[in-house]
Amino acid sequence: MSRIKVAIAGATGYTGSELLRLLYSHPDVELVAVTSERNAGKALHEIHPHLQDMSDITLQPLAEVDLTKIDTLFLALPHRVSMKFVKKHHPLPCKVVDLSGDFRLPSVETYEKWYDVKHEIPELVPEAAYGMPELFRDKIKTAKLVANPGCFPTSAILPLMPLVKEGVIETNSIVVDAKSGVTGAGASPKDNTHFPHASDNFSAYGMKTHRHTPEIELTIGRLSQAPVVQFSPHLLPVNRGILTDTYSIARPGVTQKVLTDIYEKYYGDEPFIRLRSVSPQLRFVRASNYCDIYFTFDERTNRVITISAIDNLMKGAAGQAVQNMNLMNGLNETAGLESAPVCP
Amino acid sequence: MSRIKVAIAGATGYTGSELLRLLYSHPDVELVAVTSERNAGKALHEIHPHLQDMSDITLQPLAEVDLTKIDTLFLALPHRVSMKFVKKHHPLPCKVVDLSGDFRLPSVETYEKWYDVKHEIPELVPEAAYGMPELFRDKIKTAKLVANPGCFPTSAILPLMPLVKEGVIETNSIVVDAKSGVTGAGASPKDNTHFPHASDNFSAYGMKTHRHTPEIELTIGRLSQAPVVQFSPHLLPVNRGILTDTYSIARPGVTQKVLTDIYEKYYGDEPFIRLRSVSPQLRFVRASNYCDIYFTFDERTNRVITISAIDNLMKGAAGQAVQNMNLMNGLNETAGLESAPVCP
Amino acid sequence: MSRIKVAIAGATGYTGSELLRLLYSHPDVELVAVTSERNAGKALHEIHPHLQDMSDITLQPLAEVDLTKIDTLFLALPHRVSMKFVKKHHPLPCKVVDLSGDFRLPSVETYEKWYDVKHEIPELVPEAAYGMPELFRDKIKTAKLVANPGCFPTSAILPLMPLVKEGVIETNSIVVDAKSGVTGAGASPKDNTHFPHASDNFSAYGMKTHRHTPEIELTIGRLSQAPVVQFSPHLLPVNRGILTDTYSIARPGVTQKVLTDIYEKYYGDEPFIRLRSVSPQLRFVRASNYCDIYFTFDERTNRVITISAIDNLMKGAAGQAVQNMNLMNGLNETAGLESAPVCP
Amino acid sequence: MSRIKVAIAGATGYTGSELLRLLYSHPDVELVAVTSERNAGKALHEIHPHLQDMSDITLQPLAEVDLTKIDTLFLALPHRVSMKFVKKHHPLPCKVVDLSGDFRLPSVETYEKWYDVKHEIPELVPEAAYGMPELFRDKIKTAKLVANPGCFPTSAILPLMPLVKEGVIETNSIVVDAKSGVTGAGASPKDNTHFPHASDNFSAYGMKTHRHTPEIELTIGRLSQAPVVQFSPHLLPVNRGILTDTYSIARPGVTQKVLTDIYEKYYGDEPFIRLRSVSPQLRFVRASNYCDIYFTFDERTNRVITISAIDNLMKGAAGQAVQNMNLMNGLNETAGLESAPVCP
Repeated sequence: MSRIKVAIAGATGYTGSELLRLLYSHPDVELVAVTSERNAGKALHEIHPHLQDMSDITLQPLAEVDLTKIDTLFLALPHRVSMKFVKKHHPLPCKVVDLSGDFRLPSVETYEKWYDVKHEIPELVPEAAYGMPELFRDKIKTAKLVANPGCFPTSAILPLMPLVKEGVIETNSIVVDAKSGVTGAGASPKDNTHFPHASDNFSAYGMKTHRHTPEIELTIGRLSQAPVVQFSPHLLPVNRGILTDTYSIARPGVTQKVLTDIYEKYYGDEPFIRLRSVSPQLRFVRASNYCDIYFTFDERTNRVITISAIDNLMKGAAGQAVQNMNLMNGLNETAGLESAPVCP
Repeated sequence: MSRIKVAIAGATGYTGSELLRLLYSHPDVELVAVTSERNAGKALHEIHPHLQDMSDITLQPLAEVDLTKIDTLFLALPHRVSMKFVKKHHPLPCKVVDLSGDFRLPSVETYEKWYDVKHEIPELVPEAAYGMPELFRDKIKTAKLVANPGCFPTSAILPLMPLVKEGVIETNSIVVDAKSGVTGAGASPKDNTHFPHASDNFSAYGMKTHRHTPEIELTIGRLSQAPVVQFSPHLLPVNRGILTDTYSIARPGVTQKVLTDIYEKYYGDEPFIRLRSVSPQLRFVRASNYCDIYFTFDERTNRVITISAIDNLMKGAAGQAVQNMNLMNGLNETAGLESAPVCP
Repeated sequence: MSRIKVAIAGATGYTGSELLRLLYSHPDVELVAVTSERNAGKALHEIHPHLQDMSDITLQPLAEVDLTKIDTLFLALPHRVSMKFVKKHHPLPCKVVDLSGDFRLPSVETYEKWYDVKHEIPELVPEAAYGMPELFRDKIKTAKLVANPGCFPTSAILPLMPLVKEGVIETNSIVVDAKSGVTGAGASPKDNTHFPHASDNFSAYGMKTHRHTPEIELTIGRLSQAPVVQFSPHLLPVNRGILTDTYSIARPGVTQKVLTDIYEKYYGDEPFIRLRSVSPQLRFVRASNYCDIYFTFDERTNRVITISAIDNLMKGAAGQAVQNMNLMNGLNETAGLESAPVCP
Repeated sequence: MSRIKVAIAGATGYTGSELLRLLYSHPDVELVAVTSERNAGKALHEIHPHLQDMSDITLQPLAEVDLTKIDTLFLALPHRVSMKFVKKHHPLPCKVVDLSGDFRLPSVETYEKWYDVKHEIPELVPEAAYGMPELFRDKIKTAKLVANPGCFPTSAILPLMPLVKEGVIETNSIVVDAKSGVTGAGASPKDNTHFPHASDNFSAYGMKTHRHTPEIELTIGRLSQAPVVQFSPHLLPVNRGILTDTYSIARPGVTQKVLTDIYEKYYGDEPFIRLRSVSPQLRFVRASNYCDIYFTFDERTNRVITISAIDNLMKGAAGQAVQNMNLMNGLNETAGLESAPVCP
């Protein structure tokens, strides 16, 4: 079978860099263009020295890429820039996996409120598939535009969705306490990511205001009643990984057995979800596309607790994007994503 | 004023080591004995090389210390060992600050259930003061035996107690999601504290079963109705520090202003509590006795959220123990605890 | 082409674990047995939870493996245990890559002095190939037994050998200051690898006595005059990686151009060596089989300085072992080793 | 005794911040002014949140400080800015401890070459005392201007000076391989100090060109023949600390006993130098003013090796500056510097 042709728009950030790593080893893909506006003309390894001697790609401006010759384009661009690009090229001449937040929320109104910006092409929002294969595989397979999920939402929606859909928890009782590694804050040095500040440290941020809050609520609402979620993100002194705890009040009749049956039903056959009998650990998913999930019912408090772990650059970004690309192009869903976690 | 005479029983763990650091600089204390059964006869700096050239103390067995010549004894021993010692020396010939869990729970029955051991001297439990000066200062001042609080309970009770006492939250709705540095797991190497396992990693442990759960519930119950608390501890890849989030359903009438008034009333004059307008950070309390507290009301979800930060070896153990010693001996409460946080 | 059959003896340490990761993705290998004496009978993922759902291998005792049905056996065993095994099975019924130190030193006398043990089968030492393909590729291709190099020696010999062979440095002037991540100390928790001791810390160890000293000297001596090397290892607070500085007095006539020509000649076509124009960084080789090398001539001091970086579990152990296996079995030398570094 | 009056110019960097920590607990000092041009008018704790509730100081511009009312001024300013200030206020109306590099080199010509800038007030250079009390105590006591040593030079000169002065090593054979924590790179976020780049990483920088090279050479030259030093700095993934290895060829007659006698003679009575029998560790000096030194003679290679450890913000900057201030003002040399290392 001939390889599909792929391009990455915005290759200097961590998401772009991780896409490069994955596509380099992907058996069914030919990477034909990598773009950067600021670094156009430079060799790829000047920006990413870990790729020295691995590629002879030169970065080019996005405008120079002939989209009609590409099967799938990854947009690893900031939000707003993504939707401007999509608008400009509408109708899209190739399949697009957008890694920004611009097409993730089914409600344009909610998007405009939480992102504080006018949507550029609201009519396209309903057409965009939400790129979480475990829940929306069929729509992704035929989508022209896939909105790749946010990292925190991936870690929260995967454990919560089965509980909400099956009606075993009170949907207004959900607390999501999430902890992310520093790559989640991006590749640009900032005060809170300065090593002496982030190292040997831990804190919360974005309390009550983080944009991933409506993404969690409304995505669950795509398949069920949208819950109200208390979402609190924290910054961990690690490079990669998100560990997310969720706490919900159980509805009558819940037992550990009920939970086990539900998760087996939803995820027993999923290639990238592993059900765990104790708390997941970030190191067990590092550099892999797995989402590890632990769940338990606390009889004493009548709560359902879940803990999930992902690599934020993989299942939380580039890995899930490749999984979506595979589905959109009729490739094996796990192609290019089968290597073992790097542990330790 | 002449200095009080003090001894430390069990100086090889981290709590003992931190007591040594504090008492070394304490203006009103003479350290007359430091004990270790396993390392008796060795110089202190053989066990703690960072103290080389700072002390000529030789470790001795606890049985060799003349308790009648000591004002205050710190018991930095494992639980069970502590209560055996107290029983053997009952009535105590000197003041004792016990850093184990043996005298923290007001209910012997609950102690025996969660610690899975018979209490050796249950009649002394009611006499032991719970060593959290912000809440039990008067009792501590006159106590012969102080049960120094656990690290997680300190980080949870200080932010929660005012809310429960003032009746502004539903007492059965409390979720406590706590994250501790690795020194909290003790000085003995274990699999989960091995650097390649703990570093660049994060996970939960002790779900539903951690002994600090009843300590949080019953301590709040000393001054109010005991709540039901969902307590989940996690292991952070840092040396020192606990950051604890609490989530509770607000009762009618709660506003940000109501919360501010409550915390100002309880803690406005406390020397070791700092009210923060954004999330605390572990680095801002490192090596200090501060407990930094942030609180907020989320109108959207009707929840009260608090975040606290302490150094688990300081306000979570040795620092609070020195604070208690100061109170028990009529010294300035902040003596020996006034140095600035080490940041970065 | 049918896959070669491979077994790993000793799969619970980090070297064994990394071999599992690599062989899992190797296109030309079938992993037929994995052994552990202590954990025989357990599923592989009980020991390595990151491999859950990835394999149905059960650990077995080494004695149960039918060696005649295997193409290559990896011995990831402690030194002494390795040579006992080899002696017992002499003549070997399959190809063996030994990751211990037992067959690395060409001088049995030196081995017995630095390892303080009698060699079990000295007559086999001359037959063992030293498994560094860049320098001994031909011998490896036909070897029955390959002694896989030590991690520090790999990082020191690769940059030094061209300089010594070409006679451009004084061979008694070499200082090797090496820094290793904590996985180099093994998977068993020890005091110096306890997170609170290794984290936020740095120190030297094994001054003047480290067994890798004669390995560096005598390996260079296989192709040239054996130098005298001052070797100082240090423990870095990172999981993976060795960065090694070497300092040597230049002989007359050395210039930067001379050095460039030498390294291009030796390593210009090597698939796993990258010549760098600035200091290598551990993150640029993480989880890859690369050895990155920087070299410079300091006119002011008349010294040649080199800096190399490897992942100690990859080019320093399992990666190089797979490279050797490939050569011994006529496979593509880079098979199973071509994925990009994991950065960040 | 009344307290001396002190001011800090440039309080927003790490050196200024550490001076604040030390002076806060100094028994003989009154801190009367803290300056920042960029943050003038702000409360100190807005810039340094760890100092909340500890001080009511407001930052002011340096020009507003009445220098005639101050005993000692700390200049925690960038080089060039320091000498401009000194020139403008010449003759100095108060004692000055300058923490920049502007007055450290005894040769103006060398300064201008390595710093690539014209010296503003070369006539003052000979008057400036080099602020390393162990070697220049007498001159410091009477100095008006003290050039506080660089962090790397402190870690290298203290172990090397006795060897050079006593003539036991070849002065052109010295290699200094130094490793520093990230606070040494300053408080401003940069690409190489971004957590995902500095964490889990290690590399060299400034090879052959670092300005601390002539500082090491010429400072030793103040008391002896100036050596030629090969100096290579590296960036460690820790917050605080420098560990420095030195390697030198021994002259005839050197033994371990000879070395021991030399170090005892020079440092046996020094309050902040501890001689170690094994490698120092960064954690044993953390947040203290100690310089720990290990030395050994390797008969096999005829080399003298030393390893030193300091906290770069303490003995490498603010701690040594306070030590100098103490000497300049007739205070106890150890005042304000006596607290125990923070370990772990």
